[in-house]
Amino acid sequence: MNKYIELIDKKLDEYMPVEYPESIFKSMKYTVTLPGKRLRPVMCMEACRIMGGEVEKAIPTACAIEMLHAQSLIHDDLPCMDNDDFRRGKPSNHKVFGEAIAVLAGDALLSFAPQLIIEKSELSPEIILKVLKEFTSSAGVYQLIGGQVADIESEEGRGKLNNSDEETLKFIHTNKTAVLFKLALKTGAIIAGAGDDKIKEMEDFGQKFGLAFQIYDDIMDEISTFEELGKTIGKDKEAGKLTYVTLYGLDKARAKVHELIADAHKIIDKYNSEIFSSILDKIEGKIG
Amino acid sequence: MNKYIELIDKKLDEYMPVEYPESIFKSMKYTVTLPGKRLRPVMCMEACRIMGGEVEKAIPTACAIEMLHAQSLIHDDLPCMDNDDFRRGKPSNHKVFGEAIAVLAGDALLSFAPQLIIEKSELSPEIILKVLKEFTSSAGVYQLIGGQVADIESEEGRGKLNNSDEETLKFIHTNKTAVLFKLALKTGAIIAGAGDDKIKEMEDFGQKFGLAFQIYDDIMDEISTFEELGKTIGKDKEAGKLTYVTLYGLDKARAKVHELIADAHKIIDKYNSEIFSSILDKIEGKIG
Repeated sequence: MNKYIELIDKKLDEYMPVEYPESIFKSMKYTVTLPGKRLRPVMCMEACRIMGGEVEKAIPTACAIEMLHAQSLIHDDLPCMDNDDFRRGKPSNHKVFGEAIAVLAGDALLSFAPQLIIEKSELSPEIILKVLKEFTSSAGVYQLIGGQVADIESEEGRGKLNNSDEETLKFIHTNKTAVLFKLALKTGAIIAGAGDDKIKEMEDFGQKFGLAFQIYDDIMDEISTFEELGKTIGKDKEAGKLTYVTLYGLDKARAKVHELIADAHKIIDKYNSEIFSSILDKIEGKIG
Repeated sequence: MNKYIELIDKKLDEYMPVEYPESIFKSMKYTVTLPGKRLRPVMCMEACRIMGGEVEKAIPTACAIEMLHAQSLIHDDLPCMDNDDFRRGKPSNHKVFGEAIAVLAGDALLSFAPQLIIEKSELSPEIILKVLKEFTSSAGVYQLIGGQVADIESEEGRGKLNNSDEETLKFIHTNKTAVLFKLALKTGAIIAGAGDDKIKEMEDFGQKFGLAFQIYDDIMDEISTFEELGKTIGKDKEAGKLTYVTLYGLDKARAKVHELIADAHKIIDKYNSEIFSSILDKIEGKIG
Protein backbone atom coordinates (compact mmCIF):
# COMPACT_ATOMS: atom_id res chain seq x y z
CA MET A 1 0.00 0.00 0.00
CA ASN A 2 2.79 2.46 0.84
CA LYS A 3 4.39 1.70 -2.52
CA TYR A 4 1.15 2.69 -4.27
CA ILE A 5 0.84 5.87 -2.18
CA GLU A 6 4.43 6.90 -2.94
CA LEU A 7 3.89 6.34 -6.63
CA ILE A 8 0.65 8.36 -6.63
CA ASP A 9 2.24 11.23 -4.71
CA LYS A 10 5.16 11.29 -7.14
CA LYS A 11 2.87 11.25 -10.17
CA LEU A 12 0.50 13.91 -8.79
CA ASP A 13 3.50 16.19 -8.32
CA GLU A 14 4.79 15.42 -11.82
CA TYR A 15 1.43 15.91 -13.55
CA MET A 16 0.90 19.34 -11.95
CA PRO A 17 3.43 21.98 -13.03
CA VAL A 18 3.28 25.62 -11.93
CA GLU A 19 2.99 27.91 -14.95
CA TYR A 20 1.52 31.29 -15.84
CA PRO A 21 -0.68 32.61 -14.22
CA GLU A 22 0.93 31.03 -11.17
CA SER A 23 -1.80 31.58 -8.56
CA ILE A 24 -4.20 29.14 -10.21
CA PHE A 25 -1.63 26.39 -10.76
CA LYS A 26 -0.44 26.74 -7.16
CA SER A 27 -3.99 26.67 -5.86
CA MET A 28 -4.85 23.49 -7.81
CA LYS A 29 -1.68 21.78 -6.70
CA TYR A 30 -2.05 22.89 -3.06
CA THR A 31 -5.16 20.85 -2.32
CA VAL A 32 -4.37 17.92 -4.60
CA THR A 33 -0.96 17.37 -2.97
CA LEU A 34 -2.00 17.84 0.68
CA PRO A 35 -0.87 14.63 2.39
CA GLY A 36 -3.74 12.16 2.44
CA LYS A 37 -4.53 8.48 2.56
CA ARG A 38 -5.04 8.39 -1.25
CA LEU A 39 -7.72 5.75 -0.70
CA ARG A 40 -9.45 6.31 -4.05
CA PRO A 41 -6.38 6.06 -6.31
CA VAL A 42 -5.02 3.12 -4.29
CA MET A 43 -8.33 1.30 -4.75
CA CYS A 44 -8.34 2.07 -8.48
CA MET A 45 -4.87 0.60 -8.91
CA GLU A 46 -5.63 -2.42 -6.73
CA ALA A 47 -8.88 -3.14 -8.61
CA CYS A 48 -6.88 -3.09 -11.83
CA ARG A 49 -4.32 -5.49 -10.32
CA ILE A 50 -6.78 -8.06 -8.97
CA MET A 51 -8.56 -8.05 -12.34
CA GLY A 52 -5.29 -9.06 -14.01
CA GLY A 53 -4.37 -5.66 -15.45
CA GLU A 54 -1.08 -3.74 -15.39
CA VAL A 55 -1.19 -1.39 -12.41
CA GLU A 56 0.86 1.29 -14.23
CA LYS A 57 -1.86 1.71 -16.84
CA ALA A 58 -4.31 2.78 -14.13
CA ILE A 59 -2.11 5.61 -12.80
CA PRO A 60 -3.44 8.53 -14.90
CA THR A 61 -7.04 7.56 -14.07
CA ALA A 62 -6.18 6.99 -10.39
CA CYS A 63 -4.60 10.46 -10.21
CA ALA A 64 -7.54 12.02 -12.09
CA ILE A 65 -9.94 10.60 -9.49
CA GLU A 66 -7.81 12.06 -6.67
CA MET A 67 -8.01 15.43 -8.49
CA LEU A 68 -11.79 15.14 -8.74
CA HIS A 69 -11.88 14.38 -5.01
CA ALA A 70 -9.71 17.46 -4.30
CA GLN A 71 -12.01 19.55 -6.52
CA SER A 72 -15.02 18.53 -4.46
CA LEU A 73 -13.17 19.38 -1.22
CA ILE A 74 -12.14 22.85 -2.48
CA HIS A 75 -15.70 23.78 -3.44
CA ASP A 76 -17.28 22.10 -0.38
CA ASP A 77 -15.09 24.23 1.91
CA LEU A 78 -16.16 27.55 0.32
CA PRO A 79 -17.95 30.08 2.55
CA CYS A 80 -21.18 29.64 0.55
CA MET A 81 -21.08 25.85 1.11
CA ASP A 82 -19.76 24.22 4.31
CA ASN A 83 -17.55 27.24 5.15
CA ASP A 84 -14.61 25.22 6.46
CA ASP A 85 -11.33 26.96 7.26
CA PHE A 86 -9.26 23.80 7.57
CA ARG A 87 -8.66 20.70 5.51
CA ARG A 88 -6.18 17.94 6.31
CA GLY A 89 -4.74 20.12 9.06
CA LYS A 90 -3.97 23.04 6.74
CA PRO A 91 -5.92 26.20 5.89
CA SER A 92 -8.49 25.38 3.23
CA ASN A 93 -7.89 26.50 -0.35
CA HIS A 94 -9.89 29.76 -0.26
CA LYS A 95 -8.18 30.79 3.00
CA VAL A 96 -4.83 30.66 1.19
CA PHE A 97 -5.71 31.79 -2.34
CA GLY A 98 -8.99 33.69 -1.92
CA GLU A 99 -12.47 32.63 -2.99
CA ALA A 100 -12.19 33.58 -6.67
CA ILE A 101 -9.07 31.50 -7.24
CA ALA A 102 -10.51 28.61 -5.18
CA VAL A 103 -13.64 28.52 -7.34
CA LEU A 104 -11.51 28.59 -10.50
CA ALA A 105 -9.06 25.97 -9.18
CA GLY A 106 -11.98 23.60 -8.70
CA ASP A 107 -13.26 24.39 -12.20
CA ALA A 108 -9.80 23.85 -13.66
CA LEU A 109 -9.44 20.45 -11.97
CA LEU A 110 -12.74 19.33 -13.50
CA SER A 111 -11.16 19.66 -16.95
CA PHE A 112 -7.56 18.87 -15.98
CA ALA A 113 -8.54 15.43 -14.67
CA PRO A 114 -10.27 14.06 -17.80
CA GLN A 115 -7.61 15.72 -19.96
CA LEU A 116 -5.01 13.73 -18.02
CA ILE A 117 -6.90 10.51 -18.71
CA ILE A 118 -7.05 11.35 -22.44
CA GLU A 119 -3.45 12.45 -22.82
CA LYS A 120 -1.55 10.12 -20.47
CA SER A 121 -3.42 6.81 -20.69
CA GLU A 122 -1.77 4.14 -22.76
CA LEU A 123 -5.05 2.47 -23.60
CA SER A 124 -7.26 1.95 -26.66
CA PRO A 125 -9.69 4.78 -27.59
CA GLU A 126 -12.59 2.44 -26.68
CA ILE A 127 -11.28 1.85 -23.14
CA ILE A 128 -10.44 5.54 -22.63
CA LEU A 129 -13.97 6.50 -23.69
CA LYS A 130 -15.46 3.92 -21.32
CA VAL A 131 -13.37 5.36 -18.46
CA LEU A 132 -14.36 8.94 -19.39
CA LYS A 133 -18.03 8.00 -19.50
CA GLU A 134 -17.80 6.70 -15.92
CA PHE A 135 -15.76 9.71 -14.88
CA THR A 136 -18.07 12.41 -16.26
CA SER A 137 -21.25 10.72 -15.09
CA SER A 138 -19.82 10.16 -11.58
CA ALA A 139 -18.66 13.78 -11.31
CA GLY A 140 -21.94 15.16 -12.61
CA VAL A 141 -25.38 16.19 -11.50
CA TYR A 142 -26.81 12.67 -11.31
CA GLN A 143 -24.17 11.57 -8.83
CA LEU A 144 -21.48 13.66 -7.05
CA ILE A 145 -23.11 17.07 -7.54
CA GLY A 146 -26.62 15.76 -6.87
CA GLY A 147 -25.35 14.25 -3.60
CA GLN A 148 -23.71 17.51 -2.58
CA VAL A 149 -26.90 19.45 -3.32
CA ALA A 150 -29.02 17.05 -1.25
CA ASP A 151 -26.40 17.32 1.51
CA ILE A 152 -26.51 21.11 1.77
CA GLU A 153 -30.28 21.16 1.38
CA SER A 154 -30.61 18.67 4.23
CA GLU A 155 -29.27 21.27 6.67
CA GLU A 156 -31.77 22.93 8.91
CA GLY A 157 -33.30 26.02 7.37
CA ARG A 158 -32.09 25.10 3.91
CA GLY A 159 -34.28 22.05 3.33
CA LYS A 160 -36.09 21.87 0.02
CA LEU A 161 -36.25 18.08 -0.24
CA ASN A 162 -39.49 16.17 -0.01
CA ASN A 163 -38.10 12.72 0.75
CA SER A 164 -37.99 11.08 4.17
CA ASP A 165 -34.76 11.44 6.16
CA GLU A 166 -33.82 7.80 5.51
CA GLU A 167 -34.19 8.15 1.75
CA THR A 168 -32.35 11.47 1.69
CA LEU A 169 -29.50 10.05 3.75
CA LYS A 170 -29.11 7.03 1.46
CA PHE A 171 -29.16 9.34 -1.56
CA ILE A 172 -26.50 11.62 -0.08
CA HIS A 173 -24.20 8.80 1.02
CA THR A 174 -24.51 6.95 -2.27
CA ASN A 175 -23.99 9.98 -4.45
CA LYS A 176 -21.69 12.17 -2.43
CA THR A 177 -19.38 9.56 -0.97
CA ALA A 178 -19.73 6.06 -2.40
CA VAL A 179 -19.61 7.45 -5.95
CA LEU A 180 -15.86 8.14 -6.01
CA PHE A 181 -15.00 4.75 -4.53
CA LYS A 182 -17.25 3.07 -7.09
CA LEU A 183 -15.67 5.15 -9.85
CA ALA A 184 -12.15 4.18 -8.71
CA LEU A 185 -12.97 0.47 -8.49
CA LYS A 186 -14.96 0.28 -11.72
CA THR A 187 -12.42 2.18 -13.81
CA GLY A 188 -9.62 0.02 -12.38
CA ALA A 189 -11.53 -3.03 -13.60
CA ILE A 190 -12.32 -1.40 -16.98
CA ILE A 191 -8.64 -0.59 -17.54
CA ALA A 192 -7.78 -4.24 -16.79
CA GLY A 193 -10.25 -5.25 -19.50
CA ALA A 194 -12.61 -6.96 -17.05
CA GLY A 195 -16.08 -8.10 -18.15
CA ASP A 196 -19.34 -6.45 -17.13
CA ASP A 197 -20.00 -8.90 -14.27
CA LYS A 198 -16.64 -8.13 -12.70
CA ILE A 199 -17.17 -4.38 -13.16
CA LYS A 200 -20.54 -4.75 -11.43
CA GLU A 201 -18.87 -6.67 -8.60
CA MET A 202 -16.44 -3.77 -8.09
CA GLU A 203 -19.36 -1.35 -8.11
CA ASP A 204 -21.13 -3.34 -5.39
CA PHE A 205 -17.95 -3.45 -3.32
CA GLY A 206 -17.58 0.33 -3.76
CA GLN A 207 -21.18 0.92 -2.71
CA LYS A 208 -20.82 -1.11 0.53
CA PHE A 209 -17.43 0.37 1.32
CA GLY A 210 -18.53 3.93 0.45
CA LEU A 211 -21.54 3.82 2.78
CA ALA A 212 -19.38 2.36 5.56
CA PHE A 213 -16.77 5.07 4.97
CA GLN A 214 -19.30 7.90 5.19
CA ILE A 215 -20.81 6.62 8.43
CA TYR A 216 -17.27 6.09 9.79
CA ASP A 217 -16.52 9.71 8.81
CA ASP A 218 -19.64 10.95 10.60
CA ILE A 219 -18.70 8.94 13.71
CA MET A 220 -15.20 10.43 13.68
CA ASP A 221 -16.72 13.92 13.40
CA GLU A 222 -18.41 13.12 16.71
CA ILE A 223 -15.71 11.27 18.66
CA SER A 224 -12.40 12.54 17.26
CA THR A 225 -10.33 15.70 17.69
CA PHE A 226 -9.18 18.46 15.35
CA GLU A 227 -5.59 17.23 15.73
CA GLU A 228 -6.54 13.75 14.61
CA LEU A 229 -8.77 14.71 11.66
CA GLY A 230 -7.13 17.94 10.51
CA LYS A 231 -10.50 19.62 10.02
CA THR A 232 -13.06 21.40 12.17
CA ILE A 233 -15.10 18.83 14.10
CA GLY A 234 -18.64 18.76 15.48
CA LYS A 235 -19.83 21.02 12.66
CA ASP A 236 -22.44 18.59 11.33
CA LYS A 237 -24.29 18.48 14.63
CA GLU A 238 -24.09 22.24 15.01
CA ALA A 239 -25.43 22.83 11.50
CA GLY A 240 -28.26 20.35 12.13
CA LYS A 241 -26.91 18.35 9.22
CA LEU A 242 -28.49 15.02 8.42
CA THR A 243 -25.99 12.22 9.13
CA TYR A 244 -26.31 8.60 10.17
CA VAL A 245 -25.14 9.61 13.65
CA THR A 246 -27.57 12.52 14.09
CA LEU A 247 -30.41 10.32 12.79
CA TYR A 248 -29.75 6.99 14.59
CA GLY A 249 -27.17 7.71 17.31
CA LEU A 250 -23.59 6.46 17.74
CA ASP A 251 -24.32 2.84 18.67
CA LYS A 252 -26.50 2.11 15.67
CA ALA A 253 -24.00 3.91 13.44
CA ARG A 254 -21.15 1.69 14.69
CA ALA A 255 -23.24 -1.44 14.15
CA LYS A 256 -24.08 -0.32 10.61
CA VAL A 257 -20.40 0.19 9.74
CA HIS A 258 -19.58 -3.35 10.94
CA GLU A 259 -22.49 -4.75 8.92
CA LEU A 260 -21.42 -2.94 5.72
CA ILE A 261 -17.77 -3.93 6.14
CA ALA A 262 -18.86 -7.57 6.55
CA ASP A 263 -20.83 -7.26 3.30
CA ALA A 264 -17.78 -5.75 1.59
CA HIS A 265 -15.63 -8.67 2.81
CA LYS A 266 -18.08 -11.13 1.27
CA ILE A 267 -17.55 -9.58 -2.14
CA ILE A 268 -13.81 -9.01 -2.06
CA ASP A 269 -12.24 -11.75 0.10
CA LYS A 270 -11.98 -14.25 -2.75
CA TYR A 271 -9.40 -12.00 -4.41
CA ASN A 272 -7.03 -12.29 -1.41
CA SER A 273 -6.07 -8.63 -1.61
CA GLU A 274 -3.99 -7.54 1.38
CA ILE A 275 -4.60 -3.91 0.45
CA PHE A 276 -8.39 -4.17 0.44
CA SER A 277 -8.35 -6.21 3.68
CA SER A 278 -6.14 -3.69 5.39
CA ILE A 279 -8.37 -0.76 4.30
CA LEU A 280 -11.46 -2.54 5.68
CA ASP A 281 -9.66 -3.41 8.94
CA LYS A 282 -8.55 0.17 9.50
CA ILE A 283 -12.08 1.56 9.25
CA GLU A 284 -13.39 -0.99 11.76
CA GLY A 285 -10.41 -0.49 14.05
CA LYS A 286 -10.86 3.26 14.34
CA ILE A 287 -14.52 3.32 15.35
CA GLY A 288 -14.10 0.60 18.00
CA MET B 1 -28.86 31.15 -39.13
CA ASN B 2 -32.29 31.27 -37.46
CA LYS B 3 -32.81 27.62 -38.38
CA TYR B 4 -29.60 26.70 -36.56
CA ILE B 5 -30.57 28.78 -33.51
CA GLU B 6 -34.03 27.18 -33.34
CA LEU B 7 -32.51 23.72 -33.55
CA ILE B 8 -29.95 24.50 -30.83
CA ASP B 9 -32.61 25.95 -28.52
CA LYS B 10 -34.79 22.88 -29.03
CA LYS B 11 -31.90 20.50 -28.35
CA LEU B 12 -30.64 22.40 -25.29
CA ASP B 13 -34.12 22.12 -23.81
CA GLU B 14 -34.32 18.41 -24.70
CA TYR B 15 -30.88 17.55 -23.31
CA MET B 16 -31.59 19.19 -19.95
CA PRO B 17 -34.34 17.52 -17.93
CA VAL B 18 -35.35 18.61 -14.43
CA GLU B 19 -34.93 15.74 -11.97
CA TYR B 20 -34.17 15.21 -8.28
CA PRO B 21 -32.79 17.31 -6.58
CA GLU B 22 -34.63 19.90 -8.66
CA SER B 23 -32.82 23.08 -7.61
CA ILE B 24 -29.58 22.09 -9.31
CA PHE B 25 -31.20 20.93 -12.56
CA LYS B 26 -33.26 24.14 -12.69
CA SER B 27 -30.21 26.25 -12.00
CA MET B 28 -28.16 24.61 -14.78
CA LYS B 29 -31.01 24.93 -17.24
CA TYR B 30 -31.79 28.53 -16.27
CA THR B 31 -28.54 30.02 -17.55
CA VAL B 32 -28.05 27.62 -20.46
CA THR B 33 -31.50 28.39 -21.88
CA LEU B 34 -31.49 32.18 -21.38
CA PRO B 35 -32.18 33.57 -24.86
CA GLY B 36 -28.90 34.34 -26.58
CA LYS B 37 -27.29 34.66 -29.96
CA ARG B 38 -25.88 31.11 -29.73
CA LEU B 39 -22.83 32.29 -31.68
CA ARG B 40 -20.55 29.47 -30.55
CA PRO B 41 -22.86 26.53 -31.39
CA VAL B 42 -23.88 28.18 -34.68
CA MET B 43 -20.22 28.55 -35.63
CA CYS B 44 -19.53 24.92 -34.69
CA MET B 45 -22.34 23.68 -36.92
CA GLU B 46 -21.40 26.01 -39.79
CA ALA B 47 -17.72 24.98 -39.61
CA CYS B 48 -18.86 21.36 -39.87
CA ARG B 49 -21.03 22.21 -42.88
CA ILE B 50 -18.41 24.14 -44.86
CA MET B 51 -15.94 21.30 -44.26
CA GLY B 52 -18.38 18.90 -45.90
CA GLY B 53 -19.74 17.26 -42.74
CA GLU B 54 -23.31 16.51 -41.68
CA VAL B 55 -24.48 19.41 -39.52
CA GLU B 56 -26.63 17.13 -37.33
CA LYS B 57 -23.55 15.27 -36.13
CA ALA B 58 -22.14 18.47 -34.66
CA ILE B 59 -25.21 19.22 -32.51
CA PRO B 60 -24.18 17.47 -29.25
CA THR B 61 -20.76 19.16 -29.37
CA ALA B 62 -22.30 22.53 -30.32
CA CYS B 63 -24.68 22.30 -27.36
CA ALA B 64 -21.85 21.17 -25.04
CA ILE B 65 -19.86 24.28 -25.99
CA GLU B 66 -22.87 26.50 -25.22
CA MET B 67 -23.08 24.76 -21.81
CA LEU B 68 -19.40 25.43 -21.19
CA HIS B 69 -20.02 29.07 -22.10
CA ALA B 70 -22.97 29.22 -19.66
CA GLN B 71 -20.79 27.61 -16.99
CA SER B 72 -18.19 30.35 -17.36
CA LEU B 73 -20.90 33.04 -17.14
CA ILE B 74 -22.42 31.54 -13.96
CA HIS B 75 -19.06 31.46 -12.16
CA ASP B 76 -17.91 34.84 -13.57
CA ASP B 77 -21.00 36.51 -12.15
CA LEU B 78 -20.43 35.20 -8.59
CA PRO B 79 -19.90 37.79 -5.85
CA CYS B 80 -16.28 36.63 -5.38
CA MET B 81 -15.58 37.17 -9.11
CA ASP B 82 -17.18 39.97 -11.17
CA ASN B 83 -20.19 40.23 -8.83
CA ASP B 84 -22.78 40.81 -11.55
CA ASP B 85 -26.47 40.77 -10.68
CA PHE B 86 -27.73 40.57 -14.26
CA ARG B 87 -27.06 38.44 -17.29
CA ARG B 88 -28.91 38.62 -20.60
CA GLY B 89 -31.44 40.94 -18.96
CA LYS B 90 -32.33 38.50 -16.19
CA PRO B 91 -31.06 38.11 -12.62
CA SER B 92 -27.81 36.17 -12.68
CA ASN B 93 -27.79 32.55 -11.54
CA HIS B 94 -26.73 33.11 -7.92
CA LYS B 95 -29.36 35.85 -7.50
CA VAL B 96 -32.04 33.28 -8.32
CA PHE B 97 -30.66 30.06 -6.82
CA GLY B 98 -28.13 31.26 -4.23
CA GLU B 99 -24.35 31.07 -4.36
CA ALA B 100 -23.99 27.43 -3.30
CA ILE B 101 -26.26 26.12 -6.04
CA ALA B 102 -24.72 28.49 -8.61
CA VAL B 103 -21.23 27.16 -7.84
CA LEU B 104 -22.51 23.58 -8.11
CA ALA B 105 -24.49 24.27 -11.29
CA GLY B 106 -21.27 25.46 -12.93
CA ASP B 107 -19.44 22.38 -11.69
CA ALA B 108 -22.21 20.13 -12.95
CA LEU B 109 -22.12 21.69 -16.42
CA LEU B 110 -18.38 21.01 -16.64
CA SER B 111 -19.14 17.29 -16.50
CA PHE B 112 -22.55 17.35 -18.17
CA ALA B 113 -21.12 18.90 -21.35
CA PRO B 114 -18.42 16.29 -22.12
CA GLN B 115 -20.81 13.54 -21.01
CA LEU B 116 -23.23 14.80 -23.66
CA ILE B 117 -20.50 14.61 -26.30
CA ILE B 118 -19.69 11.03 -25.26
CA GLU B 119 -23.25 9.78 -25.03
CA LYS B 120 -25.04 11.60 -27.86
CA SER B 121 -22.42 11.87 -30.61
CA GLU B 122 -22.84 9.47 -33.50
CA LEU B 123 -19.14 9.47 -34.28
CA SER B 124 -16.22 7.05 -34.10
CA PRO B 125 -14.40 6.69 -30.73
CA GLU B 126 -11.31 8.31 -32.35
CA ILE B 127 -13.24 11.42 -33.43
CA ILE B 128 -15.05 11.69 -30.08
CA LEU B 129 -11.72 11.51 -28.25
CA LYS B 130 -10.24 14.18 -30.53
CA VAL B 131 -13.23 16.44 -29.77
CA LEU B 132 -12.95 15.76 -26.03
CA LYS B 133 -9.25 16.55 -26.06
CA GLU B 134 -9.98 19.97 -27.56
CA PHE B 135 -12.89 20.47 -25.18
CA THR B 136 -11.04 19.68 -21.94
CA SER B 137 -7.91 21.60 -22.88
CA SER B 138 -9.94 24.66 -23.96
CA ALA B 139 -12.00 24.61 -20.74
CA GLY B 140 -8.93 24.15 -18.56
CA VAL B 141 -6.20 26.04 -16.80
CA TYR B 142 -4.05 26.59 -19.87
CA GLN B 143 -6.86 28.37 -21.70
CA LEU B 144 -10.32 29.44 -20.41
CA ILE B 145 -9.50 29.34 -16.69
CA GLY B 146 -6.03 30.85 -17.16
CA GLY B 147 -7.63 33.71 -19.10
CA GLN B 148 -10.22 34.29 -16.38
CA VAL B 149 -7.51 34.32 -13.70
CA ALA B 150 -5.43 36.87 -15.65
CA ASP B 151 -8.60 38.91 -16.14
CA ILE B 152 -9.48 39.16 -12.45
CA GLU B 153 -5.84 39.69 -11.49
CA SER B 154 -5.60 42.58 -13.98
CA GLU B 155 -8.09 44.57 -11.92
CA GLU B 156 -6.68 47.36 -9.82
CA GLY B 157 -5.62 46.21 -6.39
CA ARG B 158 -5.72 42.57 -7.41
CA GLY B 159 -2.76 42.55 -9.80
CA LYS B 160 -0.25 39.78 -9.39
CA LEU B 161 0.88 39.58 -12.99
CA ASN B 162 4.35 40.59 -14.10
CA ASN B 163 3.70 41.02 -17.81
CA SER B 164 3.18 44.33 -19.58
CA ASP B 165 -0.40 45.45 -20.10
CA GLU B 166 -0.27 44.62 -23.83
CA GLU B 167 0.90 41.07 -23.20
CA THR B 168 -1.61 40.54 -20.42
CA LEU B 169 -4.45 41.85 -22.57
CA LYS B 170 -3.54 39.56 -25.46
CA PHE B 171 -3.34 36.63 -23.05
CA ILE B 172 -6.75 37.41 -21.56
CA HIS B 173 -8.49 37.94 -24.91
CA THR B 174 -6.96 34.83 -26.44
CA ASN B 175 -7.68 32.56 -23.52
CA LYS B 176 -10.84 33.96 -22.04
CA THR B 177 -12.74 34.83 -25.21
CA ALA B 178 -11.21 33.56 -28.43
CA VAL B 179 -10.82 30.08 -26.94
CA LEU B 180 -14.51 29.11 -27.14
CA PHE B 181 -14.85 30.36 -30.73
CA LYS B 182 -11.71 28.42 -31.69
CA LEU B 183 -13.05 25.36 -29.89
CA ALA B 184 -16.39 25.61 -31.72
CA LEU B 185 -14.78 26.06 -35.14
CA LYS B 186 -12.10 23.40 -34.67
CA THR B 187 -14.45 20.74 -33.33
CA GLY B 188 -16.89 21.47 -36.17
CA ALA B 189 -14.08 20.75 -38.61
CA ILE B 190 -12.92 17.68 -36.67
CA ILE B 191 -16.45 16.23 -36.72
CA ALA B 192 -16.55 16.77 -40.51
CA GLY B 193 -13.34 14.74 -40.74
CA ALA B 194 -11.29 17.71 -41.99
CA GLY B 195 -7.50 17.50 -42.21
CA ASP B 196 -5.05 19.24 -39.89
CA ASP B 197 -4.51 22.21 -42.25
CA LYS B 198 -8.24 22.91 -42.38
CA ILE B 199 -8.55 22.56 -38.61
CA LYS B 200 -5.69 25.06 -38.25
CA GLU B 201 -7.47 27.43 -40.65
CA MET B 202 -10.58 27.31 -38.46
CA GLU B 203 -8.42 27.97 -35.42
CA ASP B 204 -6.92 31.06 -37.07
CA PHE B 205 -10.38 32.30 -38.02
CA GLY B 206 -11.53 31.75 -34.43
CA GLN B 207 -8.53 33.64 -33.07
CA LYS B 208 -9.16 36.71 -35.28
CA PHE B 209 -12.89 36.66 -34.68
CA GLY B 210 -12.50 36.04 -30.95
CA LEU B 211 -10.20 39.03 -30.45
CA ALA B 212 -12.54 41.21 -32.53
CA PHE B 213 -15.50 40.00 -30.49
CA GLN B 214 -13.87 40.80 -27.15
CA ILE B 215 -12.90 44.33 -28.21
CA TYR B 216 -16.43 44.79 -29.61
CA ASP B 217 -17.77 43.62 -26.24
CA ASP B 218 -15.55 46.12 -24.39
CA ILE B 219 -16.68 48.92 -26.73
CA MET B 220 -20.34 48.02 -26.10
CA ASP B 221 -19.69 48.08 -22.36
CA GLU B 222 -18.67 51.71 -22.89
CA ILE B 223 -21.24 52.98 -25.41
CA SER B 224 -24.32 50.80 -24.91
CA THR B 225 -27.13 50.69 -22.35
CA PHE B 226 -28.33 48.12 -19.84
CA GLU B 227 -31.50 47.62 -21.89
CA GLU B 228 -29.49 46.79 -24.99
CA LEU B 229 -26.95 44.46 -23.37
CA GLY B 230 -28.99 42.93 -20.58
CA LYS B 231 -26.13 43.25 -18.13
CA THR B 232 -24.66 45.93 -15.90
CA ILE B 233 -22.58 48.33 -18.02
CA GLY B 234 -19.56 50.52 -17.31
CA LYS B 235 -18.32 48.07 -14.68
CA ASP B 236 -14.96 47.42 -16.34
CA LYS B 237 -13.96 51.07 -16.19
CA GLU B 238 -15.16 51.37 -12.61
CA ALA B 239 -13.21 48.28 -11.53
CA GLY B 240 -10.09 49.59 -13.28
CA LYS B 241 -10.19 46.48 -15.42
CA LEU B 242 -7.72 46.11 -18.23
CA THR B 243 -9.56 46.22 -21.57
CA TYR B 244 -8.62 47.33 -25.07
CA VAL B 245 -10.79 50.40 -24.54
CA THR B 246 -9.30 51.41 -21.18
CA LEU B 247 -5.79 50.86 -22.57
CA TYR B 248 -6.03 52.47 -26.04
CA GLY B 249 -9.27 54.47 -26.08
CA LEU B 250 -12.44 54.03 -28.17
CA ASP B 251 -11.10 55.13 -31.56
CA LYS B 252 -8.17 52.75 -31.60
CA ALA B 253 -10.42 49.97 -30.33
CA ARG B 254 -12.86 50.53 -33.22
CA ALA B 255 -10.01 50.51 -35.74
CA LYS B 256 -8.65 47.27 -34.26
CA VAL B 257 -12.03 45.54 -34.61
CA HIS B 258 -12.22 46.54 -38.29
CA GLU B 259 -8.67 45.28 -38.86
CA LEU B 260 -9.36 41.92 -37.19
CA ILE B 261 -12.65 41.45 -39.04
CA ALA B 262 -10.85 42.13 -42.33
CA ASP B 263 -8.30 39.44 -41.40
CA ALA B 264 -11.13 37.05 -40.57
CA HIS B 265 -12.74 37.73 -43.96
CA LYS B 266 -9.47 36.85 -45.70
CA ILE B 267 -9.55 33.39 -44.14
CA ILE B 268 -13.21 32.56 -44.48
CA ASP B 269 -14.52 34.30 -47.62
CA LYS B 270 -13.50 31.48 -49.96
CA TYR B 271 -16.09 29.22 -48.29
CA ASN B 272 -18.95 31.57 -49.30
CA SER B 273 -20.70 31.11 -45.97
CA GLU B 274 -23.62 33.51 -45.56
CA ILE B 275 -23.71 32.72 -41.85
CA PHE B 276 -20.08 33.64 -41.20
CA SER B 277 -20.37 36.77 -43.36
CA SER B 278 -23.48 37.90 -41.53
CA ILE B 279 -21.83 37.36 -38.11
CA LEU B 280 -18.82 39.45 -39.16
CA ASP B 281 -21.06 42.19 -40.60
CA LYS B 282 -23.12 42.44 -37.41
CA ILE B 283 -20.07 43.03 -35.23
CA GLU B 284 -18.81 45.81 -37.51
CA GLY B 285 -22.28 47.31 -37.86
CA LYS B 286 -22.83 47.67 -34.13
CA ILE B 287 -19.64 49.52 -33.25
CA GLY B 288 -19.99 52.03 -36.12
